[in-house]
Amino acid sequence: MDLNIQTWIDRLRAGDVRTLARAISTVENRAPGWSELLKALFPHSGKARVLGLTGPPGAGKSTLVDQLARFYRRGTDADRNKRTVGIIAVDPTSPYTGGAILGDRIRMQEHFSDPGIYIRSMATRGSLGGLARTTADVTTVLDAAGRDLIMIETVGVGQDEVDIVRLADITILILVPGMGDDVQTIKAGIMEIADIFVINKSDRDGAEHVEREIRTLQSLAIRGDGWTPPIVKTVASDGTGIEELAGAVARYEEYLQQKNLALNKSVENWQERLIEMLRDALLEKARAQMTDGNMARYAAEVAEHKRDPYTLVEEIAAKVGKS
Amino acid sequence: MDLNIQTWIDRLRAGDVRTLARAISTVENRAPGWSELLKALFPHSGKARVLGLTGPPGAGKSTLVDQLARFYRRGTDADRNKRTVGIIAVDPTSPYTGGAILGDRIRMQEHFSDPGIYIRSMATRGSLGGLARTTADVTTVLDAAGRDLIMIETVGVGQDEVDIVRLADITILILVPGMGDDVQTIKAGIMEIADIFVINKSDRDGAEHVEREIRTLQSLAIRGDGWTPPIVKTVASDGTGIEELAGAVARYEEYLQQKNLALNKSVENWQERLIEMLRDALLEKARAQMTDGNMARYAAEVAEHKRDPYTLVEEIAAKVGKS
Repeated sequence: MDLNIQTWIDRLRAGDVRTLARAISTVENRAPGWSELLKALFPHSGKARVLGLTGPPGAGKSTLVDQLARFYRRGTDADRNKRTVGIIAVDPTSPYTGGAILGDRIRMQEHFSDPGIYIRSMATRGSLGGLARTTADVTTVLDAAGRDLIMIETVGVGQDEVDIVRLADITILILVPGMGDDVQTIKAGIMEIADIFVINKSDRDGAEHVEREIRTLQSLAIRGDGWTPPIVKTVASDGTGIEELAGAVARYEEYLQQKNLALNKSVENWQERLIEMLRDALLEKARAQMTDGNMARYAAEVAEHKRDPYTLVEEIAAKVGKS
Repeated sequence: MDLNIQTWIDRLRAGDVRTLARAISTVENRAPGWSELLKALFPHSGKARVLGLTGPPGAGKSTLVDQLARFYRRGTDADRNKRTVGIIAVDPTSPYTGGAILGDRIRMQEHFSDPGIYIRSMATRGSLGGLARTTADVTTVLDAAGRDLIMIETVGVGQDEVDIVRLADITILILVPGMGDDVQTIKAGIMEIADIFVINKSDRDGAEHVEREIRTLQSLAIRGDGWTPPIVKTVASDGTGIEELAGAVARYEEYLQQKNLALNKSVENWQERLIEMLRDALLEKARAQMTDGNMARYAAEVAEHKRDPYTLVEEIAAKVGKS
């Protein structure tokens, strides 16, 4: 970082989009100073509302997110600048499709001449990288930069996606008619965390069928907080149902407030996140103590069965923090 | 563990299936003594051939795995007991479908009266659990117990599955006709690691189309090791193509031997696994130093924005190993 932290923060808080982009890159790439930047930004965060949107490929998430963004930008009162939007498009499946989404997104950003909508794409980190953690950190940057509403959009319905959308205040699962057995796969894992269901492309055949499937699955799993996730039908491409979706979001927000659930949810999330952060910090420490050369030699010895990895790891762990 | 380690090992090595089941449970659940058991078993491992099989839900993986198991049990020479088989069915997507697979698998195990086929199901661990690591440890148990061939079967095509099948010597990706755009999603992430492609249910319309898609994707990505993954067409339900698949496996095994690639691959895998194991060990250490109460308090302070999590984690990490 060639600017001092305070300058970054002043510019960020003033809404400077180029500084925002640079701050996100710094955090995303763990470039020098990333940790100091986050420390300085954290006290300014915590005001944004975070929506997590996920669903299988082809469900029309990007279009839906864009429509929602436009809706929130239009606002419900006279001051059009009141709700600024940040969108993080995450693709946990691959660097390849990540690239594809990035391409789409760059085009989309151009369509939005409105600086009140900021879009950022992120693709897969290595298996140790912790995409969920990076997403959380980027959310903190957008939040501290004063974005009122942050939408995290992710493709897929596996554990990665669960980890990513878990950090949202409100999770929206987007399904489409004609998914067939896929709904069965989705129930697996993500059905439990959806606060709102969307059936997008609901003008297609099979919307009723998907709705019935969701209802059936809902009857099997009772949520601890007493909320029954509503099902909203949309056709994102022409804007149908977007207002209803925003209404469902508002109702759930109200419910969270009433029941004081928002803070509980945040405490739970932080408990997980702190442990993940601690794990990463310790790993950094361990790596620092071990040159790559050592690691390669250890791996070779284990692969040749000259050394048992379980004892080896205990020995290395015992040394961490002692030198 | 109520038996001493040597007794466990003697019984395991003698092929006792009940001891095998108990040893796997000990390792899977991290029950007392799990680490000592793995240390003692490791020197006996390293002889098994490990196949990783993955593909989208509905591709017929279980049926294919069962057919392959039967094929290997029949053997190619007079001694029918020569190739014993261990199957680990992993479902990274959810405890729910994990349960479903488990149910199926229990029924399957009953179908196999042959003790030379041992089947084990594993469902999702928590986000910190490291399903890939548990799978690797269970593989070590089966290997040390003398299973000649271990098949790891997993559902899905995301990062979790990549992590799981990565520990196999040979990775088989199972596709089906009529996947449509889904092949595009799969290319993402897992196409690179497949050593053999299977088009199962190849009597259905669209088999040629899937084959063309695979060929196209192959032409885009050149493997570092010079191997061109073959495409085998099967109809697992009636056994069509199973012998051809086993032939492809044998050819790849030979290729690995010739090029001395097996050891290289193993060294690479261990480099990743050692780091993951070290991370887990350090996390254990950190958790031990922090009571759950502390963690909850920290999480609450961060959620209320009274404390910045980045500094907090640095402080905790600095203390690890110092007391």
